[in-house]
Amino acid sequence: MAKNLLLINGPNLNLLGTREPQIYGSATLTDVENLAQAAAVKAGATITCFQSNHEGALIDRIHAARTEGVDGIVINPGGLTHTSVALRDALAGVAIPFIEVHISNIHQREAFRHHSYLSDLARGVICGLGIEGYQAAIDFAAKNL
Amino acid sequence: MAKNLLLINGPNLNLLGTREPQIYGSATLTDVENLAQAAAVKAGATITCFQSNHEGALIDRIHAARTEGVDGIVINPGGLTHTSVALRDALAGVAIPFIEVHISNIHQREAFRHHSYLSDLARGVICGLGIEGYQAAIDFAAKNL
Amino acid sequence: MAKNLLLINGPNLNLLGTREPQIYGSATLTDVENLAQAAAVKAGATITCFQSNHEGALIDRIHAARTEGVDGIVINPGGLTHTSVALRDALAGVAIPFIEVHISNIHQREAFRHHSYLSDLARGVICGLGIEGYQAAIDFAAKNL
Amino acid sequence: MAKNLLLINGPNLNLLGTREPQIYGSATLTDVENLAQAAAVKAGATITCFQSNHEGALIDRIHAARTEGVDGIVINPGGLTHTSVALRDALAGVAIPFIEVHISNIHQREAFRHHSYLSDLARGVICGLGIEGYQAAIDFAAKNL
Amino acid sequence: MAKNLLLINGPNLNLLGTREPQIYGSATLTDVENLAQAAAVKAGATITCFQSNHEGALIDRIHAARTEGVDGIVINPGGLTHTSVALRDALAGVAIPFIEVHISNIHQREAFRHHSYLSDLARGVICGLGIEGYQAAIDFAAKNL
Amino acid sequence: MAKNLLLINGPNLNLLGTREPQIYGSATLTDVENLAQAAAVKAGATITCFQSNHEGALIDRIHAARTEGVDGIVINPGGLTHTSVALRDALAGVAIPFIEVHISNIHQREAFRHHSYLSDLARGVICGLGIEGYQAAIDFAAKNL
Amino acid sequence: MAKNLLLINGPNLNLLGTREPQIYGSATLTDVENLAQAAAVKAGATITCFQSNHEGALIDRIHAARTEGVDGIVINPGGLTHTSVALRDALAGVAIPFIEVHISNIHQREAFRHHSYLSDLARGVICGLGIEGYQAAIDFAAKNL
Amino acid sequence: MAKNLLLINGPNLNLLGTREPQIYGSATLTDVENLAQAAAVKAGATITCFQSNHEGALIDRIHAARTEGVDGIVINPGGLTHTSVALRDALAGVAIPFIEVHISNIHQREAFRHHSYLSDLARGVICGLGIEGYQAAIDFAAKNL
Amino acid sequence: MAKNLLLINGPNLNLLGTREPQIYGSATLTDVENLAQAAAVKAGATITCFQSNHEGALIDRIHAARTEGVDGIVINPGGLTHTSVALRDALAGVAIPFIEVHISNIHQREAFRHHSYLSDLARGVICGLGIEGYQAAIDFAAKNL
Amino acid sequence: MAKNLLLINGPNLNLLGTREPQIYGSATLTDVENLAQAAAVKAGATITCFQSNHEGALIDRIHAARTEGVDGIVINPGGLTHTSVALRDALAGVAIPFIEVHISNIHQREAFRHHSYLSDLARGVICGLGIEGYQAAIDFAAKNL
Amino acid sequence: MAKNLLLINGPNLNLLGTREPQIYGSATLTDVENLAQAAAVKAGATITCFQSNHEGALIDRIHAARTEGVDGIVINPGGLTHTSVALRDALAGVAIPFIEVHISNIHQREAFRHHSYLSDLARGVICGLGIEGYQAAIDFAAKNL
Amino acid sequence: MAKNLLLINGPNLNLLGTREPQIYGSATLTDVENLAQAAAVKAGATITCFQSNHEGALIDRIHAARTEGVDGIVINPGGLTHTSVALRDALAGVAIPFIEVHISNIHQREAFRHHSYLSDLARGVICGLGIEGYQAAIDFAAKNL
Repeated sequence: MAKNLLLINGPNLNLLGTREPQIYGSATLTDVENLAQAAAVKAGATITCFQSNHEGALIDRIHAARTEGVDGIVINPGGLTHTSVALRDALAGVAIPFIEVHISNIHQREAFRHHSYLSDLARGVICGLGIEGYQAAIDFAAKNL
Repeated sequence: MAKNLLLINGPNLNLLGTREPQIYGSATLTDVENLAQAAAVKAGATITCFQSNHEGALIDRIHAARTEGVDGIVINPGGLTHTSVALRDALAGVAIPFIEVHISNIHQREAFRHHSYLSDLARGVICGLGIEGYQAAIDFAAKNL
Repeated sequence: MAKNLLLINGPNLNLLGTREPQIYGSATLTDVENLAQAAAVKAGATITCFQSNHEGALIDRIHAARTEGVDGIVINPGGLTHTSVALRDALAGVAIPFIEVHISNIHQREAFRHHSYLSDLARGVICGLGIEGYQAAIDFAAKNL
Repeated sequence: MAKNLLLINGPNLNLLGTREPQIYGSATLTDVENLAQAAAVKAGATITCFQSNHEGALIDRIHAARTEGVDGIVINPGGLTHTSVALRDALAGVAIPFIEVHISNIHQREAFRHHSYLSDLARGVICGLGIEGYQAAIDFAAKNL
Repeated sequence: MAKNLLLINGPNLNLLGTREPQIYGSATLTDVENLAQAAAVKAGATITCFQSNHEGALIDRIHAARTEGVDGIVINPGGLTHTSVALRDALAGVAIPFIEVHISNIHQREAFRHHSYLSDLARGVICGLGIEGYQAAIDFAAKNL
Repeated sequence: MAKNLLLINGPNLNLLGTREPQIYGSATLTDVENLAQAAAVKAGATITCFQSNHEGALIDRIHAARTEGVDGIVINPGGLTHTSVALRDALAGVAIPFIEVHISNIHQREAFRHHSYLSDLARGVICGLGIEGYQAAIDFAAKNL
Repeated sequence: MAKNLLLINGPNLNLLGTREPQIYGSATLTDVENLAQAAAVKAGATITCFQSNHEGALIDRIHAARTEGVDGIVINPGGLTHTSVALRDALAGVAIPFIEVHISNIHQREAFRHHSYLSDLARGVICGLGIEGYQAAIDFAAKNL
Repeated sequence: MAKNLLLINGPNLNLLGTREPQIYGSATLTDVENLAQAAAVKAGATITCFQSNHEGALIDRIHAARTEGVDGIVINPGGLTHTSVALRDALAGVAIPFIEVHISNIHQREAFRHHSYLSDLARGVICGLGIEGYQAAIDFAAKNL
Repeated sequence: MAKNLLLINGPNLNLLGTREPQIYGSATLTDVENLAQAAAVKAGATITCFQSNHEGALIDRIHAARTEGVDGIVINPGGLTHTSVALRDALAGVAIPFIEVHISNIHQREAFRHHSYLSDLARGVICGLGIEGYQAAIDFAAKNL
Repeated sequence: MAKNLLLINGPNLNLLGTREPQIYGSATLTDVENLAQAAAVKAGATITCFQSNHEGALIDRIHAARTEGVDGIVINPGGLTHTSVALRDALAGVAIPFIEVHISNIHQREAFRHHSYLSDLARGVICGLGIEGYQAAIDFAAKNL
Repeated sequence: MAKNLLLINGPNLNLLGTREPQIYGSATLTDVENLAQAAAVKAGATITCFQSNHEGALIDRIHAARTEGVDGIVINPGGLTHTSVALRDALAGVAIPFIEVHISNIHQREAFRHHSYLSDLARGVICGLGIEGYQAAIDFAAKNL
Repeated sequence: MAKNLLLINGPNLNLLGTREPQIYGSATLTDVENLAQAAAVKAGATITCFQSNHEGALIDRIHAARTEGVDGIVINPGGLTHTSVALRDALAGVAIPFIEVHISNIHQREAFRHHSYLSDLARGVICGLGIEGYQAAIDFAAKNL
């Protein structure tokens, strides 16, 4: 049966393509979401996309996924990666498997970006592959989650 | 005179009863709020209940308590316990005494749950008693805050 | 069937009512033990009270509880909270569930009081509620341990 | 040409004048914003004022500044100073120079207030000068950002 | 032009399929190398596979890649990930871009596995996707390195 | 000449056989002391056995060994291993060589069990061999101390 | 009454204008002292300027300020900021309020520059505003110290 | 009026004169107590001497001092210096001023001897002066406590 | 059935008898291996001995043990004890129980020797008993592994 | 023969009697030096007094002591206690035994005052006894250095 | 008599001249070894050169030096500097004095390069002088080892 | 053209030959300066020598070097190595390349000597070669700075 996926992008990812392009590249959030749709289609899955700069809205969205029968989540939590236990608890609370994606290689950046409150709950983590990281995550999720 | 209390539940506590029941038990948030109402009535106090997944909404609610003449707050801050200086500042800012409650025993869990940004401002802290912890806190608050 | 409880107070709690009253209040150890008896009676339980300044005597007392059929322990370990692995091992060794109580809010005090060698083994932890903390612990123990 | 400035106050700064006056003084947020308007006028600049207790709303406001042609930001991030990578990323993402202001001397307070996630991106940091710190920041921003 | 890739597996990866299958799955090293060949062919690239339990042999192999005109390396360094500066220096020394792959999610395992001496030099890092992680890495490498 | 040995077991080792058998096995303290006697006899030595839950009593016993002409001590200090400088000082003070024994493998347990205040003064340390560790220690002591 | 101020510049600030201009700008110490005089005059205050590379001479100068009736000190302690308890003690000893100024944004530089032995005693701290930081400090001091 | 002093020696100080004489010298505990008596007489004070290897006995003795009208305590806590919060609490609980004495220079010894749980409560601390340290402490106590 | 054991000595243990005899004693590696053979014979077991200074060769040897039906390993990993995750992974990978032996008391030596990457996987650990430690390990292994 | 002593007071001790009297008391440096002279005379010794706020001058003075035949030094290094390796090296370099004195109890103050670069080289350390600490040090030095 | 020296270069130093020339310069390993020969000749010594990327081979080579009568070793351990206790043990085991050389200034590089497992055993350490560091080391070794 | 060099020796190096000869050897400062002159002459350079125990005087001397056209500095900063940011800033401020020399091997000494505030700015660092280290530094400086 076709997998039902959810793509979540956290704070500041709406700036993609304009924000620090030397780090994040020139693709926009719309490009990412189009790429995600295409990847899902190709993998025989459906995907819903959501972005917010509000931690609370992200948590509410994750909670909603439980009743929607979402099979897997692909999430780029942005800066909340390193600071939000509440986001971690939301993902644990709904018990939907997820893949964590970072566009940049967070190991090349500030020390506070080397720890993630989500990674030990994630099925897998991908970083540094640019927006192709989303594609790899969706491919994996469609097959395995 | 009857004490005017406020019960605040933070992020993900709306999932109670469904989220990780081996940790949090099977009672729902509605059960907790009913229990709180009953406990308040028994202690001759009134209580208002509030839950949100949004840090900002929790802060706004605490600010409002100052003008409502709230005598004491019972708060389970969820994952914000460990990360939110802003929530701490809100409680300090309104100068309403409060009791911190955790359903699970946070000392048995991940190391990052062992520190709370609220505990040293609280009148008292209760953890691990399940939802009965709310009752003990309300009893104490109705008599002492 | 009526629960058989044991109340243990550790080093220096015999000074209650005289020691640093701004921190610990004016109730004496006798007051605490009377309060404990009353709480147990009210909860349909029996309780035995013990205090010692000797770590070894506390361990011996805990060991004895195993053969006495004690159902639950309420313990305020005093300064041993932060330093005694042997006390921890005694409680683990007899496998009797216990509640840890502190009269003062240990999170408002010296940093070395923020860690307890017992908390992760305890069913629950209560601090800062003054001697009412014992009452809440006994209520809980009589019902749940 | 007249500089277009933005003044941002974070969580709990709406309590100014009522919150812990021994730390923050008796001026209100309205006083601060009036002072900011006067300082901007005097410096030949225009200034817009914004306050929110919601991290997400602050991020949204900073994003909006990019399309409004804001030349410089003066920001007092409140408790988010010490916890919000997402706020940091928002300021980095819009690439508008900013000055960080704290009313109190954060070095005299709790250890967790000694680190800021914003300071190393800021043009400058001012703390402890009370609400005059805003004036000094606006003067500097109007001339140099 | 077809990319020339090198797949390197470090110590103990010859045990794949037999070693701790609850962590590493049941595919063997031969399965991984076949999968790698197939992925490379599909991506229009060529790939050479190498495995050794000897740090020195891995370094020698990486040095050789420089003169062979290798365009990109996919490497699972095994336990050397966390301990070998010499391996890091070899990769830096030949200046061939590389992707770091881990079959298991290293963030769920012992604390000493959370740091990698290679990650900050890598183009990207993939972990937890099982042996499909190799495929994603080869796809990326064939297109981008 | 026959060696005169002393076997000391610290807090909670009187619970052996009943306490956490998955960690400590089913042999009792009496079994251990019988085993020790048999091992001493076989090695042509004499041995005295002592157990206490009181740090002070253990120190007094060690002091007495000096005037009794004890040649070597085999000690399992229980939880005091990790917390007692006074016990360390007692062993250093009488200057009798000793072997430290732990029934369980302390390296597999809580982090606070990884440090011993005695090990750097000991002739040797044995852990994880169950009660056979006592036998190995007595064999060694009878021959070498 | 006109305030009597003292401006102190510590080690290496005599190099201003020649030392690492990308960090410190092109203004010289004479420029700074002229700016200080002008700022003081404008604020209706008097100011004395002192610079030394000798910690002892700076301490002697601060001691002298006590008998000269200095109302406030503006100090840029240079490298001593991070290493001199004696300088801290001198400022505490004379009990004259002071403002700490740094030309560069010390939060953007080496980690050892992120801690100051003076900041928790200072009325306020300004950094990163270049030599205009002195002006803001003098304005504040003339009005408030 | 003649001061009533109490001299307390902790674990292993009964070994004085025999234990590690290169560290502690050749005087015995009796020598120390005689010296203490002589020093007290000379200073017009009375002194009672107590030594125990049992933490609990030391705490009991300190508690008794409160009802005996002891004006000051001179204490060498031995190894408990570095490990006993309960001893600290006993001294704080009776609120009798005390001087902490160590025969050896604890700063020249193992790192774990560099921290004392008593020093910040003591009126003063003397170490490294051998048994003359007791004399200096008694002189001071007789005059000032 | 006779147990099939493997004795592995790591880097520099070929120097035994010549290397730092005040630490390691005067017995040679041949002496150790003869002692091992004798101990195995006495315990009714067979033993194979292997030494190498090459981490990779040690890993290869451990892998081979899996197909040889080795029942237990006694290993002195030398300096790799403290640095080799790959060696740890090899032992975990073959899932053969092992005893870790150190000739010297590693707790008396440099701090970096106090941590072992193998100990928490070992059945037991013996150190400081000189070459007799091998004998105790073989006795235990022959009976229990 | 009469001992030749040197009393050295470091930075800010010239402020004694005026500086933070709640910490340091009301005696002046002249009072201290007179007390020192009287103590030396009484002990049959001679003493020379020196104070400077300059680290270099203190070092020069210590060097001079070597050629003057000074038998012992009593030193209160002030704030340099915690920061000056050069002062430590001066004392080690002249190899004259010394006693370290602090008027206040440094263990009750800021954490950075808990470490001294001199204490492990000192014969003894006295703190918290006010200016009587100098007297105890001179008594000891006259008899023992 | 002419000194017999051994020059050892560790992992990746075979890449010299091609590897990161901005850090290591353009001289090759052959250049270094020729320079070493010339320096030895000039100093009246003989020198043997060895390079390997294999830790085990380096250890074997150092062991061999003991029987060859090598008087001194000059070693650039490459990345093993920071990770190899086994290499340290080999040098300690043969007890041949050695000089540690690094071409680059390791203090300007990653934090993990600031610690060496060899330096405290070395006679001396030279870094940052480029390949001339070898020459200085050989000069010193020929005269002093 | 002949290089113009400056040799700076910091605190306590005037004691050379008399201070702790087991660490520093028997050569005096005059010997060192003569050796430096000879080495400079031999290398076709000129050298000026300076020593002071005063941090400020060292800074002043370094500042003067800028106007004197000094090409390179050889500096042994003594105890200031580990504590002086001001000295670091002086060297950075004049932007003259320098070599850091230590007579003893600082890695064999106290832990606080393992960090230097100068090394990451130095061209190179030499330690442990005794006074020959100065010669190697001058040779290098004359050729390369």
